Amino acid sequence: MSYVAPLKDMLFVMNELAGLPEVNALPGCEDASPETVGAVLEENARFCGEVIAPLNVAGDREPSYWHDGNVTTTKGFKEAFKAFGEAGWQGVQHPVEFGGQGLPKLVATPCIEMLNSANLSFALCPLLTDGAIEALMTAGTDEQKITYLANLISGKWTGTMNLTEPQAGSDLALVRTRAVPQGDGTYKIFGTKIFITYGEHDMADNIVHLVLARTPDAPEGVKGISLFIVPKFLVNADGSLGARNDAHCVSIEHKLGIKASPTAVLQFGDHGGAIGTLVGEENRGLEYMFIMMNAARFAVGMQGIGVAERAYQKAVQYAKERVQSRDLAGSAGPVTIIHQPDVRRMLMSMRAQTEAARALSYVTAAAFDAAHHHADEATRKANQAFYEYMVPIVKGWSTELSIDVTSTGVQVHGGMGFIEETGAAQYYRDARILSIYEGTTAIQANDLVGRKTARDGGAVAKGILAKVRQTEEELAAFTSGDLAAIRNHLAAGSKALEDVVNFVASNMKSDIKGVFAGSVPYLKLAGIVLGGWQMARAALVAERKLKAGEGDVKFYQAKIATARFFADHFLSQASGYRAAIVDGSIGVLSLAEEQF
Amino acid sequence: MSYVAPLKDMLFVMNELAGLPEVNALPGCEDASPETVGAVLEENARFCGEVIAPLNVAGDREPSYWHDGNVTTTKGFKEAFKAFGEAGWQGVQHPVEFGGQGLPKLVATPCIEMLNSANLSFALCPLLTDGAIEALMTAGTDEQKITYLANLISGKWTGTMNLTEPQAGSDLALVRTRAVPQGDGTYKIFGTKIFITYGEHDMADNIVHLVLARTPDAPEGVKGISLFIVPKFLVNADGSLGARNDAHCVSIEHKLGIKASPTAVLQFGDHGGAIGTLVGEENRGLEYMFIMMNAARFAVGMQGIGVAERAYQKAVQYAKERVQSRDLAGSAGPVTIIHQPDVRRMLMSMRAQTEAARALSYVTAAAFDAAHHHADEATRKANQAFYEYMVPIVKGWSTELSIDVTSTGVQVHGGMGFIEETGAAQYYRDARILSIYEGTTAIQANDLVGRKTARDGGAVAKGILAKVRQTEEELAAFTSGDLAAIRNHLAAGSKALEDVVNFVASNMKSDIKGVFAGSVPYLKLAGIVLGGWQMARAALVAERKLKAGEGDVKFYQAKIATARFFADHFLSQASGYRAAIVDGSIGVLSLAEEQF
Repeated sequence: MSYVAPLKDMLFVMNELAGLPEVNALPGCEDASPETVGAVLEENARFCGEVIAPLNVAGDREPSYWHDGNVTTTKGFKEAFKAFGEAGWQGVQHPVEFGGQGLPKLVATPCIEMLNSANLSFALCPLLTDGAIEALMTAGTDEQKITYLANLISGKWTGTMNLTEPQAGSDLALVRTRAVPQGDGTYKIFGTKIFITYGEHDMADNIVHLVLARTPDAPEGVKGISLFIVPKFLVNADGSLGARNDAHCVSIEHKLGIKASPTAVLQFGDHGGAIGTLVGEENRGLEYMFIMMNAARFAVGMQGIGVAERAYQKAVQYAKERVQSRDLAGSAGPVTIIHQPDVRRMLMSMRAQTEAARALSYVTAAAFDAAHHHADEATRKANQAFYEYMVPIVKGWSTELSIDVTSTGVQVHGGMGFIEETGAAQYYRDARILSIYEGTTAIQANDLVGRKTARDGGAVAKGILAKVRQTEEELAAFTSGDLAAIRNHLAAGSKALEDVVNFVASNMKSDIKGVFAGSVPYLKLAGIVLGGWQMARAALVAERKLKAGEGDVKFYQAKIATARFFADHFLSQASGYRAAIVDGSIGVLSLAEEQF
Repeated sequence: MSYVAPLKDMLFVMNELAGLPEVNALPGCEDASPETVGAVLEENARFCGEVIAPLNVAGDREPSYWHDGNVTTTKGFKEAFKAFGEAGWQGVQHPVEFGGQGLPKLVATPCIEMLNSANLSFALCPLLTDGAIEALMTAGTDEQKITYLANLISGKWTGTMNLTEPQAGSDLALVRTRAVPQGDGTYKIFGTKIFITYGEHDMADNIVHLVLARTPDAPEGVKGISLFIVPKFLVNADGSLGARNDAHCVSIEHKLGIKASPTAVLQFGDHGGAIGTLVGEENRGLEYMFIMMNAARFAVGMQGIGVAERAYQKAVQYAKERVQSRDLAGSAGPVTIIHQPDVRRMLMSMRAQTEAARALSYVTAAAFDAAHHHADEATRKANQAFYEYMVPIVKGWSTELSIDVTSTGVQVHGGMGFIEETGAAQYYRDARILSIYEGTTAIQANDLVGRKTARDGGAVAKGILAKVRQTEEELAAFTSGDLAAIRNHLAAGSKALEDVVNFVASNMKSDIKGVFAGSVPYLKLAGIVLGGWQMARAALVAERKLKAGEGDVKFYQAKIATARFFADHFLSQASGYRAAIVDGSIGVLSLAEEQF
């Protein structure tokens, strides 16, 4: 099998770090019992491993292709997507009312990770559909919900997000697509959208495009953008499909990776106007789009973790099979390369980063559940603030490290890694988009600096740091060398992060460019420190279990070793990031444009 | 023009940091006058920019292809290689006696950088040919020299290195190719070699394969390997081409990058035996191969710098053209993205790493020249030791950073970076082989740890660190904030490197695996500290020039700003690497194989 879900680690993180029992105790989360969750994850693991993962290589070698406005996806994708929908996987986290399973985000999150490990290109279709479902749940009319949600949740139809235009990438103020009211409650949409993931395909009966556009009298900039539903096929009053809408795919991109996922250029209204209906109120489109984007950003973070896990598994397998060179400590004949210290280091680097990012993201998902379901308002608010602080980190840090992890995966394979037949290179190519789409790392970092840190003077960040300090204190109770080393690096890391939070909060007004010059290093520092915090928490749990003589000794020992590795090799970078942020803006900003 | 050679920076480094005047004063280097060098570099820049660089994209889109044992290279390559040879570029650093220009390595080095910036795939053919020339110069008989050297140096023929076999990648002890003496001074060669760069092509009249093989009674392991010349076409006594030799290309690889460069599987002796002649003595093949490899390793380091420079130029161009979002400091309309602080940070990161690696490599090249030409034996020895210490760093560090730089180049382009038509992705794919071939980064790091550090108890390394301290003292004479910041980070970096050198020297016997677990972090730390040292030296020169009112103010200011950036953003990582090396081996080595 090319991918075996790391269920043991997933369940450890869910139970011991993210608090699945507490989530299960939340109102509305009663179904998420340990038994149900175990069964859901096992079944998802089987489905992803057996049905979806085998399509990954084919998707790279025989990508989706465009012909006459239609897109034919890789052989097998259509059937797999049908099976995916029928098994209910699109609906894991969506309301029972519309056919979903109504499970918490904490349970949906490992399912999303598994799907992405299995096949990033395939997983993008459900990912975008999830975003459309979220937006319609929040801002759609009852009629829109009735018309669209059940079909999206069942996987009969799929959804897209139409933001980008040739002149408007990260900057949505530049959106030019027009929406002209027709007097009958509908609008005619005219414009060109690019980079539309699964903007056209043959895997579902209909495609529900959610499109940002401007009404005729809309204000300039982002305050004049509205959100519209523009289905590929119009939907009749009885729910059956009607006429083909004037929304056409004129080409798809030739990309570095995720080749099976069609990236469409969509032309709206070239033949009279595409019919759209408004979602929510006019000029509030950006707000609704952010609902989709926040869900999608978290999910793209999971893509990073998913592809990192897959690359790790492949590298481990190769390292255990490939015989080459003698063991340094002396045995006679050649041995498998996993005996080489640097191969170990590479594998541990892949493993430690992946586990840290997984733990941080699952903890973040649990906060989302508490934010939505907890009985106490103050607790909801605190969890919402935690979640919002974490989303740019989960997205930015997990995707950035996925580039490093997949690159290391190539390196473990040596020369074979560079040969496409081996398969390691695909992960390296696929992962490269993750730090770009749904907001580049800089966009995430700007969000972290501006809305999530400077706006409240660093209050939420400091609240999180106080929790990190608690973990440091808990670590102090243990005399183990590993735990002491973890504690030292975590303490240095949290101090560096605190300095940076203060720097951001204090200098935002006086030196905005200087602060933003350090935004990405700040995001990476936060990822390392907070990911390292989760690894430290995991080591604490493992140490206690070992002391109590409970559970799987090898598993808990490995947890401690991996946390130790993360501390020495990643948390140790904190002071470097601090310097780059607090002192580093001068070098960033000194040159005049003509000096480049 | 898609590539404009950074001649100003190259000449600055050559003159001010690498000591071109001192090299020019060496016996045998009299031709390398400032005027000659300037003219050579300008002409090389023109040739690379106008003739070679335009073929880079074509090579990626229409790679070399195999048919019936022959390989047809990308359209235009054959003509370009002919022009390359005729203009004398293959011979820059080779002896006048065999038709070369006889210029120092310091002068050949920027030429090699330019060729690689222009086209990594193309540059590989001369790179391997250089290696063959070196080996034959050192170990060939007079007859072999007469037969082969002039043709290789003129570009009429090309050379290859045949080391790798399916079961023998990094571990040459496993080489199985057989060489059977025929009694007439020739040998018949039987075996399969893989990953042979330009192992077959249509750009030259003959291909001179240098092949590692075992004679019948050779000892086991690396002490039983001999080196053979196995030309594609046998050479008659009069120098004309004779029969086709039994060395055939059975396939070429489908690779992630450098697609125009054919990577051949060569079959020797399937039709009776390939005729080869011994180079030097039997069983000393590895030694001769190391001559080729050391030259090639340095050159692959230049490939890293070359592709990094090219990626930087492309990113700068895009950042100056792409209009998106407002200036943070407040202007009304959207501006080019070079106004965004994080885009600046990315460009500076690309620029600073590239300049640091360039400076370090040119300084290393100058040491090679002094090691070969200086009148004083002690000076020659000291320079040789410096050169040998630096080769694994130039190779390992420059190639590792080229992956980061080309990845950042993709990121600067946002979504467009992921579209193959843009071209940024090609550098990212191409660069990925550089840390693998001619010895992976781990192989370089093992060399650095074992032969270059532990063997002499860190003496050479400490001698270099003493020079770094001199630079720190020189920096202390200046009150500028930039120079003070550079000094602080350099001092912390050199201290970290010293700790690590001591750690390696002290623990090699007691904990060999623990030391090698930190080998790659040690290599990267050495790269950062010694690259940072060169940037600090550059800042000193610039500060003095500015104080003296000499030269181009903007250029020198940019030098200081770039050095400052390198200090805050890269030298600042030294303490993290130190921790990963000195404390980090526990986490690397704790897990049992079954725990992965």
